Amino acid sequence: MIRIATAECFTHGRIGLEIHAISRGYYMNISHTLNFEPSRLSLTASLFIPTLSGVKSILGFEPLEPDDLLDGIKVYNDEKDKIMAVKMAEAVRSITGADIGIGSTAGIGKGAIAVADERTVLTGSSGVYADLRTSGADIIMKRQESGIEEAFVLLEKILIENYS
Amino acid sequence: MIRIATAECFTHGRIGLEIHAISRGYYMNISHTLNFEPSRLSLTASLFIPTLSGVKSILGFEPLEPDDLLDGIKVYNDEKDKIMAVKMAEAVRSITGADIGIGSTAGIGKGAIAVADERTVLTGSSGVYADLRTSGADIIMKRQESGIEEAFVLLEKILIENYS
Repeated sequence: MIRIATAECFTHGRIGLEIHAISRGYYMNISHTLNFEPSRLSLTASLFIPTLSGVKSILGFEPLEPDDLLDGIKVYNDEKDKIMAVKMAEAVRSITGADIGIGSTAGIGKGAIAVADERTVLTGSSGVYADLRTSGADIIMKRQESGIEEAFVLLEKILIENYS
Repeated sequence: MIRIATAECFTHGRIGLEIHAISRGYYMNISHTLNFEPSRLSLTASLFIPTLSGVKSILGFEPLEPDDLLDGIKVYNDEKDKIMAVKMAEAVRSITGADIGIGSTAGIGKGAIAVADERTVLTGSSGVYADLRTSGADIIMKRQESGIEEAFVLLEKILIENYS
């Protein structure tokens, strides 16, 4: 069993939920068909952590200084989002002892997704630009959908490379 | 700002997501209309933790002995679910420093939801009997929906009593 844990922001815990669903044979809302046997996967936990205080208290590391704050919700640019996504992926993997950790965060820009295991760290971004401070809910949701799809592309890559 | 954190099992992190959504003015999927000003709420984190190892590593307490295990996913009866939901609510509140903690878990039976703050612990159950080991996805989903609604009934009660 390949154990996966996620620490998510703009994807709202939905990457973890999808992994849980496909591993249990429930349903699947993503369009990307995972080219890997889903019953080999197990979701340890899926953490939706939008706040700085949640990152500190649950993931146990000091987050980068955000470019802006919305009622405690962190807002970064793409460069910082990439660093934070990797830190989140590595922290949740380390805390839970999972094989693979996934992190996601998006503020101003296309956001970042990181998939990390013992050997490999992959990062990517959504295909949709948005600004958490000013964009409408429809654009924010499109960025989320795109980020979830990208997470499965990266996850598939690491699964095939390191667990086939 | 009233800070809320959730540690969820059968409700899949959706109680926390709904709280985040209404507090940010996004959307709302539940039918229960919260009789409380939503902009006073803030979601610190929403943790979906289906596994025993996740409870131990993230919430930091030793879970009750489960009645059954499905690939590491804990299965309790209603009595144990109630105890576990309270423990989960109190643990996530303590770890995050939130004002209110919410826990949920359901194995064999109607499951349990707990809403806890410094002064009060409220518990309830969904209105739907299901068995995680044998029930179809439709019944499992109905139990989940019902559990989310019940969480908002309990949350509203504690908000009106202690934060009005």
